[in-house]
Amino acid sequence: MTTRRLPSAGFSITVRVSVPADAAAIGRLTTAVGEAGGIVTAVDVVDSDPVSVVVDLTCDTADTTHADQVVDILEELPGVDVRKVSDRTFLLHLGGKIEVNSKVSLRNRDELSRAYTPGVARVCLAIADKPEDARRLTIKRNTVAVVSDGSAVLGLGNLGPAASLPVMEGKAALFKRFAGVDAWPVVLDTQDTEEIIQVVKAIAPAYGGINLEDIAAPRCFEIEARLREMLDIPVFHDDQHGTAIVVLAALTNALRCVGKPLADVRVVVCGAGAAGTAIVKLLLREGVGDVVAVDRAGALHRGMPGLNADWQWLADNTNREARTGDLRTVLRGADVFIGVSAPNLLVGDDIATMAKDPIVFALANPDPEIDPREAREHAAVVATGRSDQPNQINNVLAFPGVFRGMLDGHARAYTDEMGVAAARAIADTVGEDKINPTVIVPSVFDARVSTAVAAAVRAIARGEAPPKADS
Amino acid sequence: MTTRRLPSAGFSITVRVSVPADAAAIGRLTTAVGEAGGIVTAVDVVDSDPVSVVVDLTCDTADTTHADQVVDILEELPGVDVRKVSDRTFLLHLGGKIEVNSKVSLRNRDELSRAYTPGVARVCLAIADKPEDARRLTIKRNTVAVVSDGSAVLGLGNLGPAASLPVMEGKAALFKRFAGVDAWPVVLDTQDTEEIIQVVKAIAPAYGGINLEDIAAPRCFEIEARLREMLDIPVFHDDQHGTAIVVLAALTNALRCVGKPLADVRVVVCGAGAAGTAIVKLLLREGVGDVVAVDRAGALHRGMPGLNADWQWLADNTNREARTGDLRTVLRGADVFIGVSAPNLLVGDDIATMAKDPIVFALANPDPEIDPREAREHAAVVATGRSDQPNQINNVLAFPGVFRGMLDGHARAYTDEMGVAAARAIADTVGEDKINPTVIVPSVFDARVSTAVAAAVRAIARGEAPPKADS
Repeated sequence: MTTRRLPSAGFSITVRVSVPADAAAIGRLTTAVGEAGGIVTAVDVVDSDPVSVVVDLTCDTADTTHADQVVDILEELPGVDVRKVSDRTFLLHLGGKIEVNSKVSLRNRDELSRAYTPGVARVCLAIADKPEDARRLTIKRNTVAVVSDGSAVLGLGNLGPAASLPVMEGKAALFKRFAGVDAWPVVLDTQDTEEIIQVVKAIAPAYGGINLEDIAAPRCFEIEARLREMLDIPVFHDDQHGTAIVVLAALTNALRCVGKPLADVRVVVCGAGAAGTAIVKLLLREGVGDVVAVDRAGALHRGMPGLNADWQWLADNTNREARTGDLRTVLRGADVFIGVSAPNLLVGDDIATMAKDPIVFALANPDPEIDPREAREHAAVVATGRSDQPNQINNVLAFPGVFRGMLDGHARAYTDEMGVAAARAIADTVGEDKINPTVIVPSVFDARVSTAVAAAVRAIARGEAPPKADS
Repeated sequence: MTTRRLPSAGFSITVRVSVPADAAAIGRLTTAVGEAGGIVTAVDVVDSDPVSVVVDLTCDTADTTHADQVVDILEELPGVDVRKVSDRTFLLHLGGKIEVNSKVSLRNRDELSRAYTPGVARVCLAIADKPEDARRLTIKRNTVAVVSDGSAVLGLGNLGPAASLPVMEGKAALFKRFAGVDAWPVVLDTQDTEEIIQVVKAIAPAYGGINLEDIAAPRCFEIEARLREMLDIPVFHDDQHGTAIVVLAALTNALRCVGKPLADVRVVVCGAGAAGTAIVKLLLREGVGDVVAVDRAGALHRGMPGLNADWQWLADNTNREARTGDLRTVLRGADVFIGVSAPNLLVGDDIATMAKDPIVFALANPDPEIDPREAREHAAVVATGRSDQPNQINNVLAFPGVFRGMLDGHARAYTDEMGVAAARAIADTVGEDKINPTVIVPSVFDARVSTAVAAAVRAIARGEAPPKADS
């Protein structure tokens, strides 16, 4: 019941092989890769002599095991000699993915005197005199900390700070690419809640915002709540709020496809962790008909014994009809399924039990709660977290613009009102005339998205009405 | 007895004035600035009509009071209307001086898949499996934290973290400019020793080195010592070790000028704080004849009552002849004066009491322990921390190359052996044939310096002999 992975650029390899100099030799290579399920994306000749040719064969594979299989098959071809296998992903990460550059020229003594001593002393004194000027005269104006303790790295679990750094660097690169925000990775050699709070508070003066990332629940809730109280800059846990914003945006457009108002639908959210809880809260704020949160213990409902504080809140504030039972039971008759849990929990027949024109967001990564192809046989709209399927629910639609807007609006806190405004901005970017069941969210490369999100969030931060979408 | 400040680029202003359109008007402006003691560096015409001309007049001034005087004088000139005064230093600092850039291209889906999910997951797993690979696959390879609690910002005192940020940003810019090192400002909202240690330990996984900066003594000693024990990356307090390295380099060449061996000279170090203590230790390591440390309590000597641990160490390990008394007393007959203390402690007559061909390093900033012009009347070699005098003792000669070498050598700690090697590399860069009493250190813009320092430090980190200087 696993979703067969498709070849992707994330598992692209470059194999340097020498082959006999006969006309068909390179053709045999590409055929062999294709038969093995790989996709050849480039063939570059790097050397040749009268009897042989050396080529770099670049191909996407499905995963590392598959990559090894492809190499094995090439090695078995007659006359083929595999000289070197490069993993393009690892090559790209060598030495890290971000760098710090000077925005000021330091060519001569005069420039040095202004950027550093003695000139800089006056700038220091000006800020000491008026601390708010740090937002004008330092990097604080445009800089966000991407903070992780490495306790919940992607779907991989508790890998620790060093191993989480490639993700945080990538996030920083995305911040710059999609919203011009300077973001810096802060990976912490501690997983103690109190210590994390203390460290983030201590490093905050240089930053205009804090993006918490890949911190395990329930620790992430307390860290976020306490830092919000302490700091005068926004604290945003992307795994919660970024996900919730994009889910609300996607759901808004999915409901437009099936013609149901949000106030009339019943939503089942599977997985009551960080993302699930934030999704439920944002749906409630937008006036969803009903929402039922399900976790391993089944549907959370009033009167349920032995709940922790976070689940108790969910039990008290959701599930109006106090439904009980497992996922399959509460899914029956529901309008929307939103999974942020684990792979392969459902099959097509489960979707068939939902209300008419069901909407299925199966967001577990990399393997969704249900094979999206199977879901599509019964559902009106299907979305996943995968880039090789239509309707990818990707946080990159939200976080760059959200922080751009908060920085530009000098926001002192992130609010759910900003989240709702961001979700509407994302949904509206698609355009009423372009929405259909395979296009409920814009492309991550649509440059209008972060601009629209930033404008919406900045307006809220400044206490203005959000800008109207172009229509 | 203060050293009259000269106009400098650190106090450069641009004054926009409109003047009558007569041939001599602009000449009257520049003459007025010159008579007021300013230096005109540029005159740009920005607008004109038949009867008037608008010009941007850029000029260096001595300080902000002087800048105001220059503007007042311009305003009083007949027919002159001052429209706007811009402070070029503040303009340069707007929005901060450094930025974070992506080193990887993120134009399309494939590139995103390699730099971020799903591709990045494999890089994370590789580091989790082999933590040492973080030095290869992340920014750790080339990145240094510039850490301050804002307690001793330049010579300005305890301004706190936000006001120290412009200095740390400037330092980061210098790191990149002079050695290609990615440095990031970490300004801390705490001045508690234990908390600073805890925070730096927590953030260390992303960094290949820690540069402590502008942290007050004696706190800085304990922070550095404890972090050195805890961390497997070098910890370097630039105010101590950077200064000591450049002083040793300068002293090496100054002694070459006067033909005295280090082992034969008696040095008086005035100011037994962070910099003074580090200078004493490095001089002892290089085998100085004798060194006497002086502070407000006079010469530190064995048997002195009521010393703190740091001064006790100095009293026990310096001042072989147990000299007592104030600065003037112990200076008599000494070969070298090194001041890292306070302005205007000495006059020319004091230098006259030193041994033959005395060497005077008056490094208090911005105003030295003695007016360098007065010192030169009696001393064979004079150096200061000022950029408008010969022989500027500037840490930028040391720290970029030291960290470049430590990063490239995968150093796990900074050692005094590295400091000595760095000092020799700086001294040797001048070239035996070019040394004279006004050229004992290379220019900060001499590109050979950081390369030579890095090579020397890298060799020590790798356990090799330092490279020989070109001769």
